[in-house]
Amino acid sequence: MDTLRGKLDRCAINTATLGHREPLHVTIDRIARAGFGGIAPWRHEVGAAGVSQIARQIRALELKVTGYCRSTYFPAPSAEERAANVQSNIRAVNDAAELGAECFVMVVGGLPAGSRNLSAAREMVSDGIAALMAEARNVGVRLAVEPLHPMYAAERSVINTVGQALALCRQLDPKNESLGIAVDVYHCWWDPELAESVSAAGSEARIAAYHVSDWLTPTTDMLLDRGMMGDGVIDLKEIRRLVETAGYSGMTEVEIFSKDVWWKAPPDEVLKCCADRLQSVC
Amino acid sequence: MDTLRGKLDRCAINTATLGHREPLHVTIDRIARAGFGGIAPWRHEVGAAGVSQIARQIRALELKVTGYCRSTYFPAPSAEERAANVQSNIRAVNDAAELGAECFVMVVGGLPAGSRNLSAAREMVSDGIAALMAEARNVGVRLAVEPLHPMYAAERSVINTVGQALALCRQLDPKNESLGIAVDVYHCWWDPELAESVSAAGSEARIAAYHVSDWLTPTTDMLLDRGMMGDGVIDLKEIRRLVETAGYSGMTEVEIFSKDVWWKAPPDEVLKCCADRLQSVC
Repeated sequence: MDTLRGKLDRCAINTATLGHREPLHVTIDRIARAGFGGIAPWRHEVGAAGVSQIARQIRALELKVTGYCRSTYFPAPSAEERAANVQSNIRAVNDAAELGAECFVMVVGGLPAGSRNLSAAREMVSDGIAALMAEARNVGVRLAVEPLHPMYAAERSVINTVGQALALCRQLDPKNESLGIAVDVYHCWWDPELAESVSAAGSEARIAAYHVSDWLTPTTDMLLDRGMMGDGVIDLKEIRRLVETAGYSGMTEVEIFSKDVWWKAPPDEVLKCCADRLQSVC
Repeated sequence: MDTLRGKLDRCAINTATLGHREPLHVTIDRIARAGFGGIAPWRHEVGAAGVSQIARQIRALELKVTGYCRSTYFPAPSAEERAANVQSNIRAVNDAAELGAECFVMVVGGLPAGSRNLSAAREMVSDGIAALMAEARNVGVRLAVEPLHPMYAAERSVINTVGQALALCRQLDPKNESLGIAVDVYHCWWDPELAESVSAAGSEARIAAYHVSDWLTPTTDMLLDRGMMGDGVIDLKEIRRLVETAGYSGMTEVEIFSKDVWWKAPPDEVLKCCADRLQSVC
């Protein structure tokens, strides 16, 4: 199988990897200068800079937007709040279209406050995505459900495996017009059904994005202690092999939340290390 | 469905819940005095006190031993180490028999040091359990594979769902002579396939133990911040309904690792709270 050596143009940086410490236009320039082919920005930083201006800068630098991060969580205690969440996501989908993003990344949300009802939360997610799909088709943006690690089930996502995300895609979008999956190694590396699920998702062309980082041992923070590729235990080459064998030919995007290590390092050093590791261990 | 009100004789305390702060014989007396019907002790504390003496005390108090905790991890870099791990587990299975334990709880271990090969580690687990089964049958002790939450895949267990544990049981022990599953709500509450897996496991009479605690939001420590039943987001009544509908009629065992809260509280207060919550929210 191909390695990523010499193929930084097929690699992207999620801006969270740099810790959101600089204005987005500075970050965009750094990422382009370092030779990456793509970027995945976040709503709060795009909003702060203005979506049109950011879209122009990204186009001028010929970067792909591998994903636009991320959805407002769908579940909420009241129908009014859930409708407002869908409206928020409709606005974001329009911004994703203006950015030319390959997908709108959907972290779907956990249990609503005060609830222990996982099934109900999953229904709210399903209903919320269903309510977003017409707009996504209208503006030509693909929605990518990102299953999160089960340790985030309570607070961030009640969709926790690739298989579960695939079932949701099949249910809501049987013709695969607008709903795909963002496969992130950090969230799914442990899954005993990963090979089977990725193969099935890929054979339906449902894999909309592929994210890499690493699982550190020990992990000292459940959210903000992801590792640089190669520093942890994830078999990155094997998972990329699964994803590409399944038919995915898109970019490999680095997404690392690391408050004590990489968010303290100089941004250009972080990008250099990402480039090195993408080309050696991914 | 029955609640657990008035049924403390069907409830057990895993001694880890009290933080291993006192000699085991003191803990055993406390648990019996508080009215619980069962106890699940750990090897290090049984070893410190002497297995025969502990077995006598437990019999005299008419406590059931709902589980003996826990296996030495199976995976290791060398065949010699793996064989030594099996030998250690053979000794523990004999102690479990002397204690009259309903099962020997198997936390199977994570990736061997330096490895990223999950499949190989899972093979090592399968081979290790296979090597233990003859002794388990000889001494009449049931082995209970405990799938751990996926956040422990790297360091503690490469078996992470009830479905995966069930597949292992079917493979190694198709006649269900000695291999079952310990279902712990903390590890499996998030699983979208939980109802299906528990139903299948129960219909084969594979559920050997049922453990309760709660998932706190936020969770501040990945290992030692479990909640008291009712203080978190797990739908405990629903999961007990699943387990009992599937045919499980054994004890409900409380297992809480909580270094900052419950391990600092007076042991009798912890037991009183366990009794209250078992009878109200479980």
